[in-house]
Amino acid sequence: MAERVVVIGADAAGMSAASQALRTSAKTGKALEVVALERGHWSSYSACGIPYWVAGTVDGPDALVARTPAEHRENGIDLRMRTEAVSVDVDARTVEYRDYENGDSGSLRYDQLVVATGAEPVRPDVPGSDAAGIHGVQTLDDGATLIERLVRHSPRRAVVVGGGYIGIEMAEAMVVRGLDVTVVDMAPEPMSTLDPDLGRQVHEAMEGMGIEVETETAVEAFETRTDGSVRAVVAGGRSYEADVVVLGIGVRPATGLAATAGLPLGRYGGLRVDDRLGVDGHDGVWAAGDCVESYDRVTKEWAYVPLGTHANKQGRVLGTNLGGGTAAFPGIVRTAISKVCDLEIARTGLRETDAHDAGLDYLTATVDSTTRAGYFPGTKPMTIKLLVERPSGRLLGAQIVGRKGSAKRIDALAVALWNEMTVSDLAMVDLSYAPPFAPVWDPVLIAARKAAEALDAGLLVA
Amino acid sequence: MAERVVVIGADAAGMSAASQALRTSAKTGKALEVVALERGHWSSYSACGIPYWVAGTVDGPDALVARTPAEHRENGIDLRMRTEAVSVDVDARTVEYRDYENGDSGSLRYDQLVVATGAEPVRPDVPGSDAAGIHGVQTLDDGATLIERLVRHSPRRAVVVGGGYIGIEMAEAMVVRGLDVTVVDMAPEPMSTLDPDLGRQVHEAMEGMGIEVETETAVEAFETRTDGSVRAVVAGGRSYEADVVVLGIGVRPATGLAATAGLPLGRYGGLRVDDRLGVDGHDGVWAAGDCVESYDRVTKEWAYVPLGTHANKQGRVLGTNLGGGTAAFPGIVRTAISKVCDLEIARTGLRETDAHDAGLDYLTATVDSTTRAGYFPGTKPMTIKLLVERPSGRLLGAQIVGRKGSAKRIDALAVALWNEMTVSDLAMVDLSYAPPFAPVWDPVLIAARKAAEALDAGLLVA
Repeated sequence: MAERVVVIGADAAGMSAASQALRTSAKTGKALEVVALERGHWSSYSACGIPYWVAGTVDGPDALVARTPAEHRENGIDLRMRTEAVSVDVDARTVEYRDYENGDSGSLRYDQLVVATGAEPVRPDVPGSDAAGIHGVQTLDDGATLIERLVRHSPRRAVVVGGGYIGIEMAEAMVVRGLDVTVVDMAPEPMSTLDPDLGRQVHEAMEGMGIEVETETAVEAFETRTDGSVRAVVAGGRSYEADVVVLGIGVRPATGLAATAGLPLGRYGGLRVDDRLGVDGHDGVWAAGDCVESYDRVTKEWAYVPLGTHANKQGRVLGTNLGGGTAAFPGIVRTAISKVCDLEIARTGLRETDAHDAGLDYLTATVDSTTRAGYFPGTKPMTIKLLVERPSGRLLGAQIVGRKGSAKRIDALAVALWNEMTVSDLAMVDLSYAPPFAPVWDPVLIAARKAAEALDAGLLVA
Repeated sequence: MAERVVVIGADAAGMSAASQALRTSAKTGKALEVVALERGHWSSYSACGIPYWVAGTVDGPDALVARTPAEHRENGIDLRMRTEAVSVDVDARTVEYRDYENGDSGSLRYDQLVVATGAEPVRPDVPGSDAAGIHGVQTLDDGATLIERLVRHSPRRAVVVGGGYIGIEMAEAMVVRGLDVTVVDMAPEPMSTLDPDLGRQVHEAMEGMGIEVETETAVEAFETRTDGSVRAVVAGGRSYEADVVVLGIGVRPATGLAATAGLPLGRYGGLRVDDRLGVDGHDGVWAAGDCVESYDRVTKEWAYVPLGTHANKQGRVLGTNLGGGTAAFPGIVRTAISKVCDLEIARTGLRETDAHDAGLDYLTATVDSTTRAGYFPGTKPMTIKLLVERPSGRLLGAQIVGRKGSAKRIDALAVALWNEMTVSDLAMVDLSYAPPFAPVWDPVLIAARKAAEALDAGLLVA
């Protein structure tokens, strides 16, 4: 008899797992039956595309869907949309569900359970935070709700709470839609996934687009109109008029269901899994994506980094194991990339604050260079900052801020970090050069060399 | 008393060595006197910029000079321009020179000799190959001579012999200048630094610019006019009318001087050096740049890859050692990048022919992907091909051909190759993702995964 797999959540992690499980089982001969439950209206979509959908840069929501429910069903997955898993009994191996489409509810037996419940936006714990007009943008349903409001109410003023990836991308989207936009952020500079010295450039780029940026400013309350909709954001003792508010202060693992079921959570509230994506101590229970914590290869500790790229990889690893193959997820190095206006932003590994928290002795090296040979038309400024362990010289992290052609250079640094290279080794790596693509010393090499020189005062270093 | 260093050749390798030697000696306290001899008119220039100078895309020649003779002299280098080293006596430790500016000649004693004589264009060994109007483009002097001819004679038809980096870049430059251009190449497809299946895309891009491309065609002779200037190129039994000819069939080490002095050359005619850039068996003689062979970290054999990026690194390593520091050049992995029209081209590591020659068992995986998320505006096609050792899974090489935003991705692959990663490890690396920059599975990851699947039929691979 076929093993029954029940997957909770039909976005990247869940559906990658389901698809790969069937693909692998077709090769191993393992008999699987896969049922997937999704409370929302869409499957396998690009949440990262939502800001661009809101801006009108890309079509949505259909264009953001990588695989529709119908396509998943054609591939043999019994995908049940608008159906929420409301509880799990890990001893009885059952999932209770509710079908919002027709009001049904029931219980599903499983042999293998995949928890892929994703993340949910953090809401500030202040008065008024549940007012109408305050939007998270975590799911396509969230995006659709926000766009509906923008179309129906034609708001003039938006406040974005939080200046991280989602915050800056949403702020830009609102500017593109013609709104007046204020970003309120608690950190000293926006984009606090970078150190503040590089975040400063993001701040300036945002102001250059006409976005008002209020840093070191905490939200204290949301004021509402008599109809219950948001009217203003009170922050840092001031009141910022707002017809619509977007929450960009991050997400947390959506692990309420898992916690109630008694599954183990880590310090960030994410599920704890082994490298096969099995939930610790619970044979037959698996988890992947934004609801799990991941192993950070630099700090060698667990971290919470909810990104689509990890969700897809983890889903695929999980599915391979479910299907009778063997695969391992090797962890992460916190690589991320974004842009605001024409300013590209990227990081990998640790920021100064991360290195400090991890108790690492480190130094930094920052270089201002260019994307192409200095004499080549279209050359643009870019800044690279490296963090380096002292005295070993091991690369700990890298940050890039610059114009067109800057940010994807982070990948070479991510691979270097992955391989635990020292900066003196990195400074001599054979990176590509031609005048339309780089100076003869690529900025990555210059930064590595500067860091290596700083390590031993330059005496013995080429 | 100060040690006297004589440097032969004042381009990237020689002047990097000279500058770094003085910089290092200032820290170590070693007393150095540096004399540099350059037979040409320019020091420390970007030869890679010449095609763009010819095209008029960049100014030249001054904009291509990173450091002028005057600047080098201000830094304490006794740089003698238009002065050619005509012989070296390694036992007596002397260099004979001739000064073309004033007709002087003489002999210089040295304690340490740096050979940085660069490369010279290969000329086809066929009748007429020394006719006027046949130009190499290796030095700024070559570039100036060619541009002078283009301006004075207003040629209508150009033939480029050879379809490698220099050939395709020069062909494009000639098109930009309004000439009719034919490229004659012996290989089955142009850009034979790629495998022919990817070279095909280069061929099509060249034809798209109006360049006539004749492959598998060997030059048999150059026909001349009565004034001795070139009139046509005879190749593959046909005659191609040509008012100007550019040679792009590669370069060879300019090691005639070194050979006559009895210095050791390798199988490609380049000087053989240790990892400190000391010439094998000759204490006090050093060499760097286009006149040396380099250690290939993939084949673990010596190779000849004359590129500015190696010349700069080697010069710096050499200078550090000369100045009393300690540095090593770790070798190369044959990374290179270029473009023709809007088609970007990159490679690192081995092609199929290289792997075959090295006696390696390998397989290939090729994927067609996109530079951005498929739904994101401006997404462009890109192709990645990987070579993988069998059965180990070690990455052996990578090639990329694609539109804007494709080619610099080769750097992540170069770092992977440098660290001898397997493709199954590479497929799980934490590369950056956001819709404006990549699909959620970066093309590099997709290619690595496909290669890993091909290695073991996909059964056990995520």
